[in-house]
Amino acid sequence: MATGAIVYLDANATTPVDPRVAEAMLAALTGLPGNPSSAHAAGRAARQAVEAARRNVMALVGAERPDEIVFTSGGSESNVAAIHAALAARPGRREVVTSSVEHASVRATLDRLVATDGLIVHRLPVDASGRLDLDAYRAALGPGTALVTLMSANNETGTLFPIADLVPAAHAAGALFHTDAVQAAGRLDPSIAATGVDMASLSAHKLHGPKGAGALYIRRGTPFRSLITGGGQERGRRAGTENVPAIVGFGVAARLARADDQMAGIARLRDRLETSITAALPGTRILGDREARLANTACLAFPGADAEMMLHRLDQLGIAASSGSACAVGTAAPSHVLLAMGLEHIAGSTIRFSLSRCNTDADIDRLLAVLPGIAREARILEIVA
Amino acid sequence: MATGAIVYLDANATTPVDPRVAEAMLAALTGLPGNPSSAHAAGRAARQAVEAARRNVMALVGAERPDEIVFTSGGSESNVAAIHAALAARPGRREVVTSSVEHASVRATLDRLVATDGLIVHRLPVDASGRLDLDAYRAALGPGTALVTLMSANNETGTLFPIADLVPAAHAAGALFHTDAVQAAGRLDPSIAATGVDMASLSAHKLHGPKGAGALYIRRGTPFRSLITGGGQERGRRAGTENVPAIVGFGVAARLARADDQMAGIARLRDRLETSITAALPGTRILGDREARLANTACLAFPGADAEMMLHRLDQLGIAASSGSACAVGTAAPSHVLLAMGLEHIAGSTIRFSLSRCNTDADIDRLLAVLPGIAREARILEIVA
Ligand SMILES: Cc1ncc(COP(=O)(O)O)c(C=O)c1O
Ligand SMILES: Cc1ncc(COP(=O)(O)O)c(C=O)c1O
Repeated sequence: MATGAIVYLDANATTPVDPRVAEAMLAALTGLPGNPSSAHAAGRAARQAVEAARRNVMALVGAERPDEIVFTSGGSESNVAAIHAALAARPGRREVVTSSVEHASVRATLDRLVATDGLIVHRLPVDASGRLDLDAYRAALGPGTALVTLMSANNETGTLFPIADLVPAAHAAGALFHTDAVQAAGRLDPSIAATGVDMASLSAHKLHGPKGAGALYIRRGTPFRSLITGGGQERGRRAGTENVPAIVGFGVAARLARADDQMAGIARLRDRLETSITAALPGTRILGDREARLANTACLAFPGADAEMMLHRLDQLGIAASSGSACAVGTAAPSHVLLAMGLEHIAGSTIRFSLSRCNTDADIDRLLAVLPGIAREARILEIVA
Repeated sequence: MATGAIVYLDANATTPVDPRVAEAMLAALTGLPGNPSSAHAAGRAARQAVEAARRNVMALVGAERPDEIVFTSGGSESNVAAIHAALAARPGRREVVTSSVEHASVRATLDRLVATDGLIVHRLPVDASGRLDLDAYRAALGPGTALVTLMSANNETGTLFPIADLVPAAHAAGALFHTDAVQAAGRLDPSIAATGVDMASLSAHKLHGPKGAGALYIRRGTPFRSLITGGGQERGRRAGTENVPAIVGFGVAARLARADDQMAGIARLRDRLETSITAALPGTRILGDREARLANTACLAFPGADAEMMLHRLDQLGIAASSGSACAVGTAAPSHVLLAMGLEHIAGSTIRFSLSRCNTDADIDRLLAVLPGIAREARILEIVA
């Protein structure tokens, strides 16, 4: 699907809302005016809609009980809440094990806690494909480890961490395990709960749901305390009047993400993109782990070309892609993910194309018609500059 | 406006979304798919919509600069963020001055900080009308005061605190002043910024905007640090992909709240309700400050009657009202606001009717047709029980 005439290839930044999600949200906006905490009919109707959405999110992550899902305002809030809660749950322990390629909401939260609370953070290195160093992982765990927080799938390269394989060692060390599953939810099998993690963060807007809705999966029995303290909403684990329309939209999006067995089609488009571009532009590098990678993400380096210039040209032609994480745009700093992968020399030449079920072969055709020319032009301009 | 056949008199719990708000949100949901942090056209369009909304919220609170408004997920998050930020801004000070009638998101946040950080909280008493004890206020301020947090208008009784009069003493003591203006925004003149507060919390769903959107007004120059740490959104003061449709809806709601000079009409309906009920049911008490009170709130005690029973009957007849704060519903505990007012003996007999511009004389007619009978019946049942 093009948005208007736009070819949208930036699904890891955000995805277009599915029309069925928008429809359900509009119905909730106008038809469910009550506060889910109110005892009267309008309140009860809103409550029922929230609980129906919760069941769909449960199914998406493989949760077993409704109280394992806490609705939040998005992936960032879920990450921050999980980290604070885990540290409170392991009061004697002051260490966190994480990676050098996590999302800003994990990274900056840990940085803050280092500065304010003297937290000790072990940031595990990754190799040139973005793979975790497993020996370093085991060596970092110890009796001081309160929490391991590692992402399921990287937002820039799509590289997957083998979460299910990592959990047992953390538990053996007495630590909690949290995964930022924002990019993985709805895009990977098996379910998130099946990996054995204690907590997992989700965001609706990465799976054709609305912005402003997310969830934290909290496995039954995991100690938890709220980040947003206040009223008794979400069984006391997240205060604030529930965002009913967005939660309803999240529920529909979660259901569609399961129902559509869409990843095979997306993988085919992504592979076509990569095969055609690397053929047309020898020297183009595909970044990330070629095996353990999200099927929708193509992170491509065009050595010698300026990625910002290329993105600007693509944008002028109605094609949306990005250089790394959306929330770092505008900062001139190179991607911390590519730096951690030792790719400093090509960080400025890298573009992420991320697809969703909204894309078609026609989108890839349009991209392929212009990208080789734009890359060649950008290389020449770099040389003469 | 009745919602379907419902007479909705619970505006302090939440208000129906204005149709113009819903329309703008639907347009944003489908027409602004981008991430406001993305550099491409879809991202820029989303960014522009967020900034247009910010100007409307600025005007609502009387802010002077865009960076004085930080969008959040709602009033609860705004309150929690303000309290944490103020304590970080005054690191040597460990005391907070507040009242005994604040919303749960202020109350529970302070309780948590007492338990975890040894914070000292001065909870100022109120009189039987919910008025603050001003001598106690001045006596509580001192060189240890980091923050004064007092609500502009109480959600249960509508009683107003004289914020503009209270600010100077807090500043003289070197403390920051935050007000929970969730119930006041769009319902009171003069503007929130004119009171001199350093921070003020707003929530869109109390003024016919969407649930899941709020703001924190942060006066220029006030030190602030984010609760939700992560990406650089909201100038680094609130991480997370912006909830574009809800922010757009909040902007429209803020504009309508200013444009509609609606409080006079609401006050007339509220006064009619109170006059008629007290005439029909001698002994009915109007709670809260009769002068300094929100024009939309009627908090009525029916001594000898069980409020829950009455609310249940009203609900059966399609009339929505409440006993106290929505987020405390389900907990059998009596309202902490009424307890603080020394009204323990009638707390179980009190109903809050809260109106909005959606209500009409027909709504009041329907209420008046049944309420006296329901109250009498509830009294008899209490006596025979
Ligand atoms: C890996 C990852 N984690 C967390 C987030 C934050 O989610 P949200 O934008 O809903 O706050 C994002 C995207 O922004 C992400 O890609
Ligand atoms: C006085 C007051 N403060 C804060 C809030 C919390 O706002 P929200 O529901 O948007 O979190 C409410 C209403 O719920 C309120 O009445």
